[in-house]
Amino acid sequence: MELDLQKYNVRTDLAVEAKEIAEASYGGPIPGLNEEVEEHGGIKVTRIDVTNEAASQRIGRIQGHYITVEVPGLRNQDTDLQEQVAQTFVKEFSGFLQKIGISSEAKILVVGLGNWNVTPDSLGPLVVENILVTRHYFELAPDQVNDGYREVSAVAPGVLGLTGIESSDVVKGIVDRIKPDAVIAIDALASKSLERVNTTIQIADIGIHPGSGVGNKRRGLTQDILGVPCIAIGVPTVCYASTIVGSVIDMMKQHFSGSGAEQTKQILGMLPELGEQERLMLVKEVLQPLGHDVVVTPKEIDEFVEDIANVIASGLNAALHQAVNGDNVAAYTH
Amino acid sequence: MELDLQKYNVRTDLAVEAKEIAEASYGGPIPGLNEEVEEHGGIKVTRIDVTNEAASQRIGRIQGHYITVEVPGLRNQDTDLQEQVAQTFVKEFSGFLQKIGISSEAKILVVGLGNWNVTPDSLGPLVVENILVTRHYFELAPDQVNDGYREVSAVAPGVLGLTGIESSDVVKGIVDRIKPDAVIAIDALASKSLERVNTTIQIADIGIHPGSGVGNKRRGLTQDILGVPCIAIGVPTVCYASTIVGSVIDMMKQHFSGSGAEQTKQILGMLPELGEQERLMLVKEVLQPLGHDVVVTPKEIDEFVEDIANVIASGLNAALHQAVNGDNVAAYTH
Amino acid sequence: MELDLQKYNVRTDLAVEAKEIAEASYGGPIPGLNEEVEEHGGIKVTRIDVTNEAASQRIGRIQGHYITVEVPGLRNQDTDLQEQVAQTFVKEFSGFLQKIGISSEAKILVVGLGNWNVTPDSLGPLVVENILVTRHYFELAPDQVNDGYREVSAVAPGVLGLTGIESSDVVKGIVDRIKPDAVIAIDALASKSLERVNTTIQIADIGIHPGSGVGNKRRGLTQDILGVPCIAIGVPTVCYASTIVGSVIDMMKQHFSGSGAEQTKQILGMLPELGEQERLMLVKEVLQPLGHDVVVTPKEIDEFVEDIANVIASGLNAALHQAVNGDNVAAYTH
Amino acid sequence: MELDLQKYNVRTDLAVEAKEIAEASYGGPIPGLNEEVEEHGGIKVTRIDVTNEAASQRIGRIQGHYITVEVPGLRNQDTDLQEQVAQTFVKEFSGFLQKIGISSEAKILVVGLGNWNVTPDSLGPLVVENILVTRHYFELAPDQVNDGYREVSAVAPGVLGLTGIESSDVVKGIVDRIKPDAVIAIDALASKSLERVNTTIQIADIGIHPGSGVGNKRRGLTQDILGVPCIAIGVPTVCYASTIVGSVIDMMKQHFSGSGAEQTKQILGMLPELGEQERLMLVKEVLQPLGHDVVVTPKEIDEFVEDIANVIASGLNAALHQAVNGDNVAAYTH
Repeated sequence: MELDLQKYNVRTDLAVEAKEIAEASYGGPIPGLNEEVEEHGGIKVTRIDVTNEAASQRIGRIQGHYITVEVPGLRNQDTDLQEQVAQTFVKEFSGFLQKIGISSEAKILVVGLGNWNVTPDSLGPLVVENILVTRHYFELAPDQVNDGYREVSAVAPGVLGLTGIESSDVVKGIVDRIKPDAVIAIDALASKSLERVNTTIQIADIGIHPGSGVGNKRRGLTQDILGVPCIAIGVPTVCYASTIVGSVIDMMKQHFSGSGAEQTKQILGMLPELGEQERLMLVKEVLQPLGHDVVVTPKEIDEFVEDIANVIASGLNAALHQAVNGDNVAAYTH
Repeated sequence: MELDLQKYNVRTDLAVEAKEIAEASYGGPIPGLNEEVEEHGGIKVTRIDVTNEAASQRIGRIQGHYITVEVPGLRNQDTDLQEQVAQTFVKEFSGFLQKIGISSEAKILVVGLGNWNVTPDSLGPLVVENILVTRHYFELAPDQVNDGYREVSAVAPGVLGLTGIESSDVVKGIVDRIKPDAVIAIDALASKSLERVNTTIQIADIGIHPGSGVGNKRRGLTQDILGVPCIAIGVPTVCYASTIVGSVIDMMKQHFSGSGAEQTKQILGMLPELGEQERLMLVKEVLQPLGHDVVVTPKEIDEFVEDIANVIASGLNAALHQAVNGDNVAAYTH
Repeated sequence: MELDLQKYNVRTDLAVEAKEIAEASYGGPIPGLNEEVEEHGGIKVTRIDVTNEAASQRIGRIQGHYITVEVPGLRNQDTDLQEQVAQTFVKEFSGFLQKIGISSEAKILVVGLGNWNVTPDSLGPLVVENILVTRHYFELAPDQVNDGYREVSAVAPGVLGLTGIESSDVVKGIVDRIKPDAVIAIDALASKSLERVNTTIQIADIGIHPGSGVGNKRRGLTQDILGVPCIAIGVPTVCYASTIVGSVIDMMKQHFSGSGAEQTKQILGMLPELGEQERLMLVKEVLQPLGHDVVVTPKEIDEFVEDIANVIASGLNAALHQAVNGDNVAAYTH
Repeated sequence: MELDLQKYNVRTDLAVEAKEIAEASYGGPIPGLNEEVEEHGGIKVTRIDVTNEAASQRIGRIQGHYITVEVPGLRNQDTDLQEQVAQTFVKEFSGFLQKIGISSEAKILVVGLGNWNVTPDSLGPLVVENILVTRHYFELAPDQVNDGYREVSAVAPGVLGLTGIESSDVVKGIVDRIKPDAVIAIDALASKSLERVNTTIQIADIGIHPGSGVGNKRRGLTQDILGVPCIAIGVPTVCYASTIVGSVIDMMKQHFSGSGAEQTKQILGMLPELGEQERLMLVKEVLQPLGHDVVVTPKEIDEFVEDIANVIASGLNAALHQAVNGDNVAAYTH
């Protein structure tokens, strides 16, 4: 079953944000939504399981497992921190594969979604460029492949505007042909808050759904379509101008929260009383006639996207191949 | 004399925006500020002359001549419109050179400021890549150069973080060595409104001043420093998250203006009553503690910056060389 | 039936060169090999039909139709000449499609073979970037597509070393999924003579065969494999060091041909008497132990490959869509 | 005094090759030419001192010190070997600086010559992109700079065809402005033998001379011109087609050397008897009328030039800053 994510008007591809919004409107923890949070060294890991249909409806997300790694410090281009994030990613991703039953010998096709000509949408193709592919060695000389490697292949299918073909169709065609056991799809996402842009990695076992991501797919990459499990790895690289405004109103509300309800109302009028959806609607109503609701990305996007693509590619190489570890992982990325 | 543009807190490099802000706080037309507006075919040309010190102080801009070409339609990547903008640019820029006394034989050094690794800051280097340079022909075989060309050279000096040298020092060194009659400096700018980003070209005879542009120079490129006139051509490619919020509050005010003062106040509180500076200060106060006041650029920046760099390079080639015109201009750009 | 092209040791992907070699060893025109040559304005068009199995064996090429467009002047980066070549290409390619029975409404998948990270192997992907794709319009809103366009899609499948998947498998998967009526595959080739590198375009209705091209495919793109006709468009961008030496010995022979057999023998020894194969074998024997037989490309390859990719993309856009012509073709390429 | 390197028709920028040629024609070791060779682990270091004018004339090289690091294995893209070469480079370069009297606190300007749009000529700009520049820290906050760093700045001045300005003039202008104590210029070179292309690094204290390098400067970068010492670091990335042929004839001669003089003469005629110059002249005479003497580079040039630029940049960063060493050097390059 496909949820219409758009009707929730959430404008976020992150489960942690969807949960925040849903809980604010529900007024507390949502039954069927399990959450586990761990934090140390500036790295926050949130594991959310959406376990039943009611919770799924409330949060506007498919049932499944979601892991979010949030690292505000990634903004500062700290090489040491990047390495720690890569290690956390390896640990979480390996655990995730085990949890959802992908064996250590499963053949993997890595799919880098997005448009390499649009910097904030180029995450997927950049990751693919740095994936250690091995499938051809298994095909050509299987008995000469060392232990500690599995069959991995990788493609960047391009976007509809460049190819005339849905990326979903390209991937489905390749999956039917080479028959991997699972697909891992990398995609750039939209977030509702600027501060999560380029500092957050989401892993989920729900595949890619229509309308998600920066490039707005029309068809998805899901187990239903592909016939094999599809794990999605995403990083928010953009957000809507309207959501920036929304979050600022929110912050103003908090800013004046000490001043008492009466004064806050005097200063901010009815704005703080509006729910997230109403506020978004107001901002969009105001912006839309001018064609203003543009999607924005931080000025430093080129370096951010390259750094985080490197983190994910290193992490995947180490998580997928036991022979790749901290000592040699750098040799496989550019 | 150098103005401290930062103290005005304007966060815009555009004279048209500085004028809007200054007039709003002054309460009407500012004496000494002459403006001429022309518009047709979706292209709006504004010529502003800042003629005395008082006006300069009010608007927070150096005395001089400013031309702004605004083309909202450039967002839509319309090839025909781009060509018309290039033609308007040629006409305006040629007139501008004449007005400020740069002869048709003056030797020109085109300087592309900015960082080629940061897409929204790469405008200058991109323009330089497409400039028709001729200085070497004049040096090596002056009598074999056809009529209709003048001496043009072009450099992209890089940014402080990449070279360890102020771009101002690189350019001054080259100017002292090759002695052009004038410098034309291309730079990416910051605007206070998202809708001017990538749709506006500003021409001014005031050079480049410290703190302006996307890359925040510490030293300027001015006639005082270089010893020859410096014309600045700029395109806003970024804006601050805080100014987006500011403009939205402004639009909300207008949106509810029909509802009567009382109701507007009920909905928006005191926000609409704040002056531009106070509002900015509020938004920044709210955002700053979170480190939020990031600089953003539209998601489509790669294509925008390439298109507009092409418009400016074509325009400069035709404006500087009489032998280059509508029929052959495309042959000189990539 | 697949020919083992390698056993002929030809080291050329061009039919015109294979024919030269074969005729030299056969001692004259080969029966079953029809040739038509046309030349004007510095553009030489050769149409070769390999009409029977004996001719195919002699020339080491599959039976089929080959067109070669040779333009030595392309070395000089003459924009006017490039445009004429694009026009010749449109005329020849349109005629070719008609001759081999591809209708003007046939749905086309353009495939850009090769590695975008290896400049001399990047021709295919570069062409694909500039193809006017329309398939998605036909899919999403078929009744809104203007007359004069056909369904065109385009992919660059990458190379084995980057993806772990044979490009043949990627393409076969996509063909099975989207079912085009014909495939047009663009590939960079190897030539036996440096002077044909970057100045020659070959069109053939034989598809892509294992071992051909710069990237050395292991599996082909042929009608047998794909189930639809595959037209190959290739440009030589590299040649082997050994063949350079071979051609030089050949030129020496011609250089001294006026001096009489005795003197030539005195100067060049037995070298001129060797057949092409023997000479190649000698040169390779000499070079191989040192690991010397590297593949080389002209220093200016970046610009050459960009220019010729542009010629082919413009040519394909005009040949495939009747609505695209000399006036608007530039709008579709970068 | 400037030597006319061209009249020697050497077509090599490497001192080791010039010495080979000169000794072959001189018939033995050349007085005034001191040579020291060290080799281990597949890395051969040759130190040549040209100590007097007679030797300089014979070898066609300026008096000075030359170090050549030759590593045939660099062809194989072996990451471990690259690291060892970087270490050897650090050791040799540090010793070289000491030998020629550049102190450990001397302010350095690194100059990356060449054209970033021409892959085999892009070595210099690529190195510059990865240099750890520090000059701005010394300028802005000298007392906050940690021990173990010196003042380093870096520029890529572009080439005449792109800027209209001799790179020599750009650099001279900058040197006059920022007054470094020494210049280190990186340039892509031409070699006479394909096997040295991309496997050899040359260090010399003679600066850059007109006509050298891939880009053929018209003016040099020498102590005479700049007023400070200029150290040149070069890597051959191209060679002439004619020299390939020349070396092959040479190899043939050696190949048949066991067969006795009479038989060699029968097979190769007079070719082996020709001196290097005569042979080159013959080959060029044969090739020239056809415009054939193109400059070629190996097909894999993109990856080679990136790898070796990385080796040199890492090496320079460690050699120039004591605080940079094997443990952290990777953090400064991309």
